[in-house]
Amino acid sequence: MTKALIIGGGGMLGQGLAKALAAKGALAGSALSGVTLFDIAESAIPSGLPGASALTGDLSRPDAACRLIADRPDVIFHLAAIVSGEAERDFDKGYRINLDGTRYLFDAIREENARSGYCPRVVFTSSLAVFGTPLPDVIGDDQVLTPMSSYGAQKAMGELLLADYSRRGFMDGIGIRLPTICIRPGKPNAAASGFFSNILREPLAGEPAVLPVSRDVRHWFASPRAAVGFLAHAAEVDTGAIGGRRNITMPGISVTVAEQIDALREIAGEDAVALIKEKPDAAIEAIISTWPKAFDAQRALALGFVPDRSMQDLISVYLEDHAPEAVRARWQR
Amino acid sequence: MTKALIIGGGGMLGQGLAKALAAKGALAGSALSGVTLFDIAESAIPSGLPGASALTGDLSRPDAACRLIADRPDVIFHLAAIVSGEAERDFDKGYRINLDGTRYLFDAIREENARSGYCPRVVFTSSLAVFGTPLPDVIGDDQVLTPMSSYGAQKAMGELLLADYSRRGFMDGIGIRLPTICIRPGKPNAAASGFFSNILREPLAGEPAVLPVSRDVRHWFASPRAAVGFLAHAAEVDTGAIGGRRNITMPGISVTVAEQIDALREIAGEDAVALIKEKPDAAIEAIISTWPKAFDAQRALALGFVPDRSMQDLISVYLEDHAPEAVRARWQR
Ligand SMILES: NC(=O)c1ccc[n+]([C@@H]2O[C@H](COP(=O)([O-])OP(=O)(O)OC[C@H]3O[C@@H](n4cnc5c(N)ncnc54)[C@H](O)[C@@H]3O)[C@@H](O)[C@H]2O)c1
Ligand SMILES: NC(=O)c1ccc[n+]([C@@H]2O[C@H](COP(=O)([O-])OP(=O)(O)OC[C@H]3O[C@@H](n4cnc5c(N)ncnc54)[C@H](O)[C@@H]3O)[C@@H](O)[C@H]2O)c1
Repeated sequence: MTKALIIGGGGMLGQGLAKALAAKGALAGSALSGVTLFDIAESAIPSGLPGASALTGDLSRPDAACRLIADRPDVIFHLAAIVSGEAERDFDKGYRINLDGTRYLFDAIREENARSGYCPRVVFTSSLAVFGTPLPDVIGDDQVLTPMSSYGAQKAMGELLLADYSRRGFMDGIGIRLPTICIRPGKPNAAASGFFSNILREPLAGEPAVLPVSRDVRHWFASPRAAVGFLAHAAEVDTGAIGGRRNITMPGISVTVAEQIDALREIAGEDAVALIKEKPDAAIEAIISTWPKAFDAQRALALGFVPDRSMQDLISVYLEDHAPEAVRARWQR
Repeated sequence: MTKALIIGGGGMLGQGLAKALAAKGALAGSALSGVTLFDIAESAIPSGLPGASALTGDLSRPDAACRLIADRPDVIFHLAAIVSGEAERDFDKGYRINLDGTRYLFDAIREENARSGYCPRVVFTSSLAVFGTPLPDVIGDDQVLTPMSSYGAQKAMGELLLADYSRRGFMDGIGIRLPTICIRPGKPNAAASGFFSNILREPLAGEPAVLPVSRDVRHWFASPRAAVGFLAHAAEVDTGAIGGRRNITMPGISVTVAEQIDALREIAGEDAVALIKEKPDAAIEAIISTWPKAFDAQRALALGFVPDRSMQDLISVYLEDHAPEAVRARWQR
């Protein structure tokens, strides 16, 4: 029987993962006996999730993790973080949640390890923000980490902690660098990357969207479904095959904005495309120009992580998994 | 007028730096008006050091750095650390001193920056221990950091903090990855790397030394004098030319144990070489086999960091700067 803990379980990927676990019913080769969702606010619990409970708390408080680890979950998904923009605006909060929170968690595990030999699988979500310019057009698995944001620095430090605590045998960690999620469900948000989803999701709903960059901008994406698949696979993969380098860039698809728009046209027609208004924003263009364009994610592929197949897939996943019923009914074939 | 602070000022490089500053009398283009040496125990103060004082304290206590920064030093050398073996034996102590201590220092600077715009040059000593296998025979400036020790992980996190705090404009940091220091003065020590110095220093003094690895082992070295030169240059170099990547591998010389022994023979003859006893130690051989052999330290060279020229130089520096008088008199030409 496997007990799982999802920290940040109320968030976008946490909720997707909870649904996927409800559907799977098992993890790491045995039936799920309990799944705890931990988040600042009470997480929704998807139907059918075995032994589910929702706990609230703040991981950046030194005692929160100890309480969670007392239950000795076999698999821990650590998804709690504040995102790039917020970590850049509020320096203290970013380090407190993204770095200290991660360290409190790992230290709580280490203490339980010292007491009882406890050694859970820990899946940590890192980010492409660990990379910074200059970058090659196609980035290999040996790219040096040179973050250009506090969020990226915090994720890179989380990776180092994860690798060191795993090397010491306190836990069995794996860090997965997620591509940018597209189409991100919900409302448009102010993140610099928001437009990559907005220009698809909004026109599918008959709403206008702003494109602040040129159409030849290229970036690296995964659907929420693929990302949840990475999380579940990371919980089950043989870490013996990973060796000392426990942080792995996830596979994705490399697509230009023009190719995003072509896929939208194919599925929703020229009227939908016409809802995209080009409104160049030099600040956003400058930020995006420093971002990765594509990866050769050989290690992840060799370990069995499965990416999306095409830009059209990213739109189909949105329609199948996330879109409001009216939007789904309108476009789904 | 420049005020300097040396944290870890009582250590081997701290003392060497203090002597070099006494001889220079100036730093970063203006006369030195004060030099503070901070360490756990009271640091010796070399003669002729302008406005010198020695303070004692523990950087891993949250309040220690604030007291040091209240004086608003223009240049801060952060050399305090516990070394690899100790950080591996005492996990908590390693993180407390090497990571938390560094962060307390940088945060104290950040707080003074917020109050007054204070933005000192901060020179941080990182290490080759940030690198881990697999490594190419000659390592470039873009090598990915994959530490294989807690000490290496802590130094890599210090590098990330330094880069982020500098990017945010809280300080003007530069991290220098020092080669292994050879000949390390003083007594033989138990560090895995100790023999690289022991097999030279001890025979020069007519004492036996143990060689635990094979003679074709190759590694990357700098003399204490060259390392002190790196520190002083790092305090003065134009960080505008460095860009966002503020952590730089220092140049050194790549030498095999056989070449070390040849240099010893050249300076001290076959009798000295005969004092080296080969006593293979599989554990040490295994550790050393994961260490870097050589670097192509282009960035550092372009920035004007000056390495030693030869293995013979490393021995000469020891005789000139560190050896007991009797040893110096015996071999110096
Ligand atoms: N979505 C992406 O494009 C993307 C890309 C790369 C990495 N990631 C990473 O994946 C993880 C999940 O991403 P997401 O898109 O689901 O983010 P999200 O913001 O939707 O979810 C994160 C959750 O963490 C919770 N959280 C934040 N601070 C917390 C704290 N102190 N204590 C407890 N809970 C806390 C939030 O309340 C939120 O519910 C994050 O770590 C994120 O950095 C996401
Ligand atoms: N010597 C080398 O081969 C080498 C190689 C790479 C990096 N480095 C780094 O260079 C720096 C200096 O090296 P060194 O050879 O002079 O080392 P050292 O051990 O001789 O000096 C370090 C000094 O820091 C002091 N210190 C340790 N913890 C402290 C604390 N909590 N508060 C205040 N002071 C504290 C120690 O008392 C010691 O005097 C270290 O950061 C080391 O990691 C050295």
